[in-house]
Amino acid sequence: MTDIDTLRDRIRHTIDTKTKPLGALGRIEDLAAQIALIQQTAAPRMTACTLTIFAADHGIAHAGVSAFPQVVTGQMVLNFLSGGAAANVFAAVNGVTLQVVDAGVAGEPISHPALIDRRIAPGTGNFLTEPAMTPAQAEQALDHGAAVARSARGEALAFGEMGIANTATAAALTHKLTGLPLADLVGRGTGLDDAGLANKVAILSRAVARTGTLDAEQAMAEYGGFEIVMIAGAMLETARSGRVVIVDGFIATAAAVLAVTLEPESRAAMVFAHHSHESGHGALLAHLDARPLLALDMRLGEGTGALLAWPLLKAAAAMMTDMASFETAGVSTRD
Amino acid sequence: MTDIDTLRDRIRHTIDTKTKPLGALGRIEDLAAQIALIQQTAAPRMTACTLTIFAADHGIAHAGVSAFPQVVTGQMVLNFLSGGAAANVFAAVNGVTLQVVDAGVAGEPISHPALIDRRIAPGTGNFLTEPAMTPAQAEQALDHGAAVARSARGEALAFGEMGIANTATAAALTHKLTGLPLADLVGRGTGLDDAGLANKVAILSRAVARTGTLDAEQAMAEYGGFEIVMIAGAMLETARSGRVVIVDGFIATAAAVLAVTLEPESRAAMVFAHHSHESGHGALLAHLDARPLLALDMRLGEGTGALLAWPLLKAAAAMMTDMASFETAGVSTRD
Repeated sequence: MTDIDTLRDRIRHTIDTKTKPLGALGRIEDLAAQIALIQQTAAPRMTACTLTIFAADHGIAHAGVSAFPQVVTGQMVLNFLSGGAAANVFAAVNGVTLQVVDAGVAGEPISHPALIDRRIAPGTGNFLTEPAMTPAQAEQALDHGAAVARSARGEALAFGEMGIANTATAAALTHKLTGLPLADLVGRGTGLDDAGLANKVAILSRAVARTGTLDAEQAMAEYGGFEIVMIAGAMLETARSGRVVIVDGFIATAAAVLAVTLEPESRAAMVFAHHSHESGHGALLAHLDARPLLALDMRLGEGTGALLAWPLLKAAAAMMTDMASFETAGVSTRD
Repeated sequence: MTDIDTLRDRIRHTIDTKTKPLGALGRIEDLAAQIALIQQTAAPRMTACTLTIFAADHGIAHAGVSAFPQVVTGQMVLNFLSGGAAANVFAAVNGVTLQVVDAGVAGEPISHPALIDRRIAPGTGNFLTEPAMTPAQAEQALDHGAAVARSARGEALAFGEMGIANTATAAALTHKLTGLPLADLVGRGTGLDDAGLANKVAILSRAVARTGTLDAEQAMAEYGGFEIVMIAGAMLETARSGRVVIVDGFIATAAAVLAVTLEPESRAAMVFAHHSHESGHGALLAHLDARPLLALDMRLGEGTGALLAWPLLKAAAAMMTDMASFETAGVSTRD
C-alpha cells in the first residue's frame, strides 16, 4: 500500500471505531476524513478560521447589470470595517477573524487603518467592449491573493467578496472557463426582476461573443474581477500550504473554478459551504463535483455561507480527536 | 391590526432594512422571524442553549428489533457522563451545556453525581404483548420532562435521546398518533440489514395490531418510551415558557409529534434541526409541515443534529440585533 492509502485506512479506522453506529454521522464523517487527509493526520485540528473579504468594482456595472448602484461596493467596505454587515455578525457569533481587502474599489482609495490595501486599479474595464484587466494585472491579483492567504491565521481560510455586478463577471468568466451555457450561469444577483435578468443575459451574451476560445490566463484577464482573481490566488496558496479552503457561494465558487482550472490539485483542499440561491451556483458546483454542506437559500455573498459552515468543520475535526472509541469507553459493539 | 400582526410587521421591517438585498439571507431570515415571534420582540436574544439527553430502555428490544444489545443504553449514559460521546464533542465545540437524565434505563440505577435521576422504571414493558407503561407512568414522564425543562438554562432548549430499540418505539407510537402507514415509519435504526428490517416491520405490525384506535394519552402509554414521553413533556414546557425548542432527529421528532398532538400550539416554538437519514423521519417532518435546517445524512440521535443547528439560531438572532440597517450604515438602496 502507498503512504496515502495507509493514511486513508488509518483515518477510516479512527472514524469507524468511535462510539456510534457505523456511518451514523453521515457527511460529518466525510468532512472529517477530508480534513484529516488535507492535514495528513488522523488527529486533525480545526481551531481557528479567518474570513478575508475581497472588495472590487466591475466595469460591466456601467452596462446596467445590477439592481444596486456601484457606489454600494465602497459603502459596504465601510460597513464591514465598522462591523455592521451580515459577515461581521456571523463571524462574531462563530469566532471567526474577519479582515477586508481593497482589491480594486472604484473611486478614491478608502483610508482606514484596518483596511488591507491590495488595490490593482479603481475597478476593472468594462468587458463588454474591452478586457477587464491586463494579463499583468491578473497575475498581480493572483499574487496579492496568495500573499494575503499566507498571512491569514487558521487551519481553514474562508474568502468572501463584495463587488456590485460581480455575479455578471462570475457568469462571463466561468462560461469561458467551463464552456457551460451562459444562460445556466446568469442569475438575478442582488435582485433583478425578469426584465433586468433578460437584459443581463443579452449584455453578457454580447460580451462573451467579443472573444473566441480562451485559456484560463486569458479568460481571467478578459472577464475577471480583481476580487475574484485575488480569491483564486488565495485559494491556491491555501491549498498549497495544506490548509482547508472554505468555499462560499456563487462568486467564491467562480473563483474556485478558476483556481481548479489553473491547478487541479487545489480541488482536494476545498470544502463547499453552502448552495446559494443564485441560479448559476448549481451548475458550477456540478462542474466541480461539489456537494455543499448547507442549503439555506442564501445569496448574500460576503462569505456568509462559509461563516455558517465553519462550526461544522470544527465539529468534524473534534470528532476525530475528542470522541471516545468503543474500546476506550467500554461500549459494546453490534450483536 | 392585532398586536401579533403589528409585531410581525415590525419584525419584517427590521429584517428588510438590514444591509443586504431583500431576502438574501434566505432561511436565516425565516428563522430570525420565528425566534423573534417566540420571544415577542424584534430584538431577540439567543445566547445560551442546554441539551438534555434522556436515556431509557425499551421492552420491545427483547423482540430483537435492534442491531445493538440493550446494555449499550447504560454504557452510553456513562460515555455521556465521561464526555466521550459525539453529543459531548459537538456540545463543547458549540458552547452548549449538556446534561443527562436517566428516564428509565434497564438494570440497577447508575450512580453518578452528574446524572439526573428521573427513573420511571428499569425499562418499559414489551409493547408486543403488553402496554409499555401505565397511564400514571406516562403522566409522570410528561411531568418529569416539564420539570427538567423548567430548570434548564437558555433561550433555546434541545433534547436528545439514547435508548436501544427506540426507533421501533417511535415508529409504533407515531403510527398510532398520526395514522401514517407503519412501513413509512420503520427504518434501519442503528444499522439493521434487510432481513433485520423486514423482521422489525413484521414485529411492529403485530404490536400495533394489539390495540385499536387510541387517543394521544392512550397511545403514549401503550407504545411510548420513557425518554420519548419525557421529551414531549419537556418540549411542551419549553414552548409554554416562550423559549425555542430545537428538535433533533427521528426520535425527537416523534416526541414532537406527541407534544403537538397533546398541545397543537407548541408547534410554533419548534425549530427543526436536521433531516435524519433514518427513513421514517421524512414522513414525520411532512406530518408536522416542518423543513429542517440541516441535511447531513446523520442518524445518531443524542441531540447531535440539534447541536449542529444551534449556531444557526445564534446567527439568526444576532442578525436582528447586531447588523446595521441601510440608514445607520449609510449604504444606498436599490437604483
